[in-house]
Amino acid sequence: MSSANRRERFLSVFPRIVEELTAYLKKEGMPKDAVEWYQRVLDYNTPGGKLNRGMSVVDTVEILKGSDLTEDEYFKAALLGWCIELLQAYFLVADDMMDASITRRGQPCWYQVPGVGNIAINDAFLLEGAIYFLLKKHFRQEKYYVDLLELFHDVTFQTEIGQLIDLITAPEDNVDLSKFSLEKHHLIVVYKTAFYSFYLPVALAMRMAGVTDEAAYTEALNILLPLGEYFQVQDDYLDCYGDEKVIGKIGTDILDNKCSWNINIALQNATPEQRQILDDNYGRRNATSEKKVKEVFASPEVDVAGRFAKYEQESYEKITKMIDQVDEAKTGLKKQVFVSFLDKVYKRSK
Amino acid sequence: MSSANRRERFLSVFPRIVEELTAYLKKEGMPKDAVEWYQRVLDYNTPGGKLNRGMSVVDTVEILKGSDLTEDEYFKAALLGWCIELLQAYFLVADDMMDASITRRGQPCWYQVPGVGNIAINDAFLLEGAIYFLLKKHFRQEKYYVDLLELFHDVTFQTEIGQLIDLITAPEDNVDLSKFSLEKHHLIVVYKTAFYSFYLPVALAMRMAGVTDEAAYTEALNILLPLGEYFQVQDDYLDCYGDEKVIGKIGTDILDNKCSWNINIALQNATPEQRQILDDNYGRRNATSEKKVKEVFASPEVDVAGRFAKYEQESYEKITKMIDQVDEAKTGLKKQVFVSFLDKVYKRSK
Repeated sequence: MSSANRRERFLSVFPRIVEELTAYLKKEGMPKDAVEWYQRVLDYNTPGGKLNRGMSVVDTVEILKGSDLTEDEYFKAALLGWCIELLQAYFLVADDMMDASITRRGQPCWYQVPGVGNIAINDAFLLEGAIYFLLKKHFRQEKYYVDLLELFHDVTFQTEIGQLIDLITAPEDNVDLSKFSLEKHHLIVVYKTAFYSFYLPVALAMRMAGVTDEAAYTEALNILLPLGEYFQVQDDYLDCYGDEKVIGKIGTDILDNKCSWNINIALQNATPEQRQILDDNYGRRNATSEKKVKEVFASPEVDVAGRFAKYEQESYEKITKMIDQVDEAKTGLKKQVFVSFLDKVYKRSK
Repeated sequence: MSSANRRERFLSVFPRIVEELTAYLKKEGMPKDAVEWYQRVLDYNTPGGKLNRGMSVVDTVEILKGSDLTEDEYFKAALLGWCIELLQAYFLVADDMMDASITRRGQPCWYQVPGVGNIAINDAFLLEGAIYFLLKKHFRQEKYYVDLLELFHDVTFQTEIGQLIDLITAPEDNVDLSKFSLEKHHLIVVYKTAFYSFYLPVALAMRMAGVTDEAAYTEALNILLPLGEYFQVQDDYLDCYGDEKVIGKIGTDILDNKCSWNINIALQNATPEQRQILDDNYGRRNATSEKKVKEVFASPEVDVAGRFAKYEQESYEKITKMIDQVDEAKTGLKKQVFVSFLDKVYKRSK
């Protein structure tokens, strides 16, 4: 199936999900304006992204099963995928408020929509609430139901912990580069991104495909967290060095005092003079400061681009080696699950 | 045991809970400032209230068991109680932001604390996250583990739906009494308060005490939702008619455009002239308007106080009758569970 068709099919499940949620509110006698509000929260915040996380649940179930999915299997795998997209919507609605962002996915952030404002906090809660409603409705009879619940609980908590470290390490209004380090960057990207974006889709698919060996989950984690970290390092790199026309947005990590891979590599390798330039200019909201920071990044001592190329090569080799060592017969895993993820990520330009 | 001792014993469990949560963050290698931040979130927002919800889990397990609890049973019941208090902390941190409140339990609202601000949104998430971490740690081996998870999921979603109706029915900055009705008030108080404050503690205790008959949960619900509604109607009544010195705060429901029982009773019974006074003065932040609304409340046509006395008597009789009909042998319930709740609520003055 073509990439566009795969996306279409995945998207076609979403209205059924919205329908189930609003039907519940109606059944409970909720007023029409509340039902319509919830429908709008779901529609506005859930389906507008790349949907990679959600669709990768379907892909992974297909690979693990080794044959086409039945209609029912497709629906259930897609539903799990949409639960990840709902989880992400929950995080993003809140993140945008905490970062005071203006736009998201080419439209105003939800809290910026007239009439919404701080109600968006409760709306975020309701996006999360949808996950457990849907899991109960569709997976309650399955032996692995409690495993699905625990996966969502664990990963949600981990993501929130990652967000906490990020928020107190890199507040936009108080630049203090002494708080930054590659170790903190590692913790932030693994907890805030890798668990829910890489481990969660695969682990959900493994549960659905009947993988019960706990060691298989540890093995998947051991591959997917480094892969997620590599993905996020790329993201940080592309924010500064990517082609705006390809990515579709202008990077603002330097202006926003983000604890990105680039700045941490720079801090690790800067001369005292360069360090002073970074302290004086990072996280300041003006183009001159940003230019000075970029000059340090490009200097021979720091050489962010060169170090990234090296990091990328090493990561690719390290992850490839781990994938090679997966014992398919013993674990019930398939190397193709990880190869497919790695191929999507390696040397991407957007 | 005296009431003060009961509270002391319940409170003594909380540091152990905080210790378990911070130990997890430390074990995961989280930076010291993140661990301290989380500890502060937990300490600041969880134990400062009346703790009625949490302690009633312990009381109910004791009544259902019919004898003193062992140390281990006490700890587990108290832990479930603290999970409700964590759930409430999650709601209150967010509610205070949505209501732009200044103080809570005699101290600044968490988001008002210097250095916190909108980070409080993620802190609220982390308060909720603690619940599932604790349940997994202490109840994973129990047959009723999944029932506990579902209780928290269901009740959380219901409370959020109640909050949504409340937020869009009674926004502080847009008074529109045509949106109000006793039916909406009923929905708001049942969903926003009664499920988590009355049904949840009893249902958790029933699970722990080994009640498995689903009909028993329905019966408990059928008693506890009206009881919770009666409690909230009292709360609304006392906001306007309670003794400030006894309650410890000054009621602001009229100033704040709250969809309270009082205003809905007034709307139901007002003459057209009185209705106009309410439309012109309710939810306006000045003492003159508040006084005019109170005059309508006190008029012979509306008579909020008289109607409340009647409502209180009828509620008490209705609930007492339902309790009388509980078949203890058949359901595994004890009438004393409900009597104990009703006694705490009936004719309270604070």
